[in-house]
Amino acid sequence: MILDEMLSAVEEELKRAVQQAGGNDLAELHYMLAYHMGWEGEGAGPEASGKRIRPLLVLLTCAAAGNDWHRALPAAAAVELVHNFSLIHDDIQDNSPLRRGRETVWKRWGVPQAINAGDTLFSLAQLTILRLAETASPEVSLRAAQVLHETCLQLTQGQYLDLAYESRGNLSIEAYWPMVTGKTGALLSACTRIGAIVACAPEDVIQAYARFGLSLGLAFQLQDDLLGIWGDAELTGKSAESDLISGKKSLPVLYGLERQGPFARRWSQGNIRSHEVRELAEQLKNEGAYDYTRELANQHTTRALECLEQARPSGEAGEALIGLARRLLSRKA
Amino acid sequence: MILDEMLSAVEEELKRAVQQAGGNDLAELHYMLAYHMGWEGEGAGPEASGKRIRPLLVLLTCAAAGNDWHRALPAAAAVELVHNFSLIHDDIQDNSPLRRGRETVWKRWGVPQAINAGDTLFSLAQLTILRLAETASPEVSLRAAQVLHETCLQLTQGQYLDLAYESRGNLSIEAYWPMVTGKTGALLSACTRIGAIVACAPEDVIQAYARFGLSLGLAFQLQDDLLGIWGDAELTGKSAESDLISGKKSLPVLYGLERQGPFARRWSQGNIRSHEVRELAEQLKNEGAYDYTRELANQHTTRALECLEQARPSGEAGEALIGLARRLLSRKA
Repeated sequence: MILDEMLSAVEEELKRAVQQAGGNDLAELHYMLAYHMGWEGEGAGPEASGKRIRPLLVLLTCAAAGNDWHRALPAAAAVELVHNFSLIHDDIQDNSPLRRGRETVWKRWGVPQAINAGDTLFSLAQLTILRLAETASPEVSLRAAQVLHETCLQLTQGQYLDLAYESRGNLSIEAYWPMVTGKTGALLSACTRIGAIVACAPEDVIQAYARFGLSLGLAFQLQDDLLGIWGDAELTGKSAESDLISGKKSLPVLYGLERQGPFARRWSQGNIRSHEVRELAEQLKNEGAYDYTRELANQHTTRALECLEQARPSGEAGEALIGLARRLLSRKA
Repeated sequence: MILDEMLSAVEEELKRAVQQAGGNDLAELHYMLAYHMGWEGEGAGPEASGKRIRPLLVLLTCAAAGNDWHRALPAAAAVELVHNFSLIHDDIQDNSPLRRGRETVWKRWGVPQAINAGDTLFSLAQLTILRLAETASPEVSLRAAQVLHETCLQLTQGQYLDLAYESRGNLSIEAYWPMVTGKTGALLSACTRIGAIVACAPEDVIQAYARFGLSLGLAFQLQDDLLGIWGDAELTGKSAESDLISGKKSLPVLYGLERQGPFARRWSQGNIRSHEVRELAEQLKNEGAYDYTRELANQHTTRALECLEQARPSGEAGEALIGLARRLLSRKA
């Protein structure tokens, strides 16, 4: 199976990258990173590593655009390192004690070392993408690096908005899009775009893959927002109502706030408690937030699949890419 | 004066880079960065910006190696952005409320936004170095980017050690070098190395400039350590004794700890208070820490100037580079 081959090659490439942070006196730094990546410590294993969706998108796109996916391995590892650097910093910013069922890096090693561990992964991401130059032309390598760096800037811009929204009361529904485009859309779009760039695909194909990644990311995020309020708690492994309790400004919430109905009135009165959640989720649905978000998720899903078709993915990887997109867009958890 | 021309060109390049983080809804993010860079807010101005020594080293090296320094402006801005990203994160890690007499970013906007502001500057640094490709060959641009990224990794490794040493009791004097090589030496070495790379200097000249930057960085740090304990409080603008109070593991302190004399005994008993500082500094001097550190600072200074001579800097920029090095190595504050 091509996905299994890719997953094990990505893991090897990631380990090779993270190895560079170790060495004399640096065993503990390396351990922090290996712990976060899901390779070391209690609970290590695939569950702790996450699904490696981003590197798979890079490799599948490269192969579906007609090139040898092994050439894109440094780019695949680099996007996953960027993703993980941002998770380490996110967990500090959100004060989250747990990630994937394990203690977060800051919880275990303290905030100062966790900030630095994130910075280390970020540095490794940059070094790793340049390894493209070992097999690709300098022009292709530079272009891929440029896309990755632009994406990192967008990530930080999205994160700025997310943090700023926490304390802002009068948010309109339009505030949602620049935030999620930066936080989720940009990196998924970079994955498919970089995969196509490394494959030396024609410009229109690169653009189609970039649009596919962006729509996929937005559809994925909208679905996350739906699951965060109306998901099945047993499938997601967390309280299905957690987005209402955490106060996350997801699209359904912003929709409800703009309606200024009973949901908005309750929201403005302060933290929502567990026993209110079921009723409030129902209320928000009655006000139309579920249908509104569902409809947008469907639109972005349709658009993602159209863009993917325009990109004309080929071969086994093309099939696998379509399959992965469909799975991501219809997940229940 | 060539230095003034360079300084104003650097400032323009930096502003152009930081501008990219702004735009719709992002005015506050831009403001945080502009504030930290010393351009905005109370107390804005050259005092708040710092001396821009690192970009000057890049530009002077490029010119002294016989090329047009304007070509190196993206690299000069990139190293300064890296330096400033690390300062924002350092201030969080050290819990420092003030930098250059002004509130630090975390103190003003909170830890989550400050982590993200640092990440934003880091992303901008990466984008900015790639602008070299507008005037240099792809190969030169890739090599410069590679050096910068390796340097960022070394910075984070040095920072890991610095943080880890805080809670480690049994440090030997050897522990000092990997920490300061990462925290100070690596970036200064990258400045001169990248300047020479962009100038397309011969390999032996690039290496000589790299060694010059490293020795300059280490000599600079050793002098900082001396000033941190025995400096003139009025010149440095801070309590001359602050390194003893802050508990910083500088070379004189590590020397004193290894001696296991009266200084080490007092140190092991916990925080040192203001009224003890003058006497303890005197004690540490009597145990030989001042002479030991002074001698090493002199050795690295001599070595820096020898390496610079080997690099054969030429023209007005060559003179200015020698002058800058001498000033840095004989500063009193």
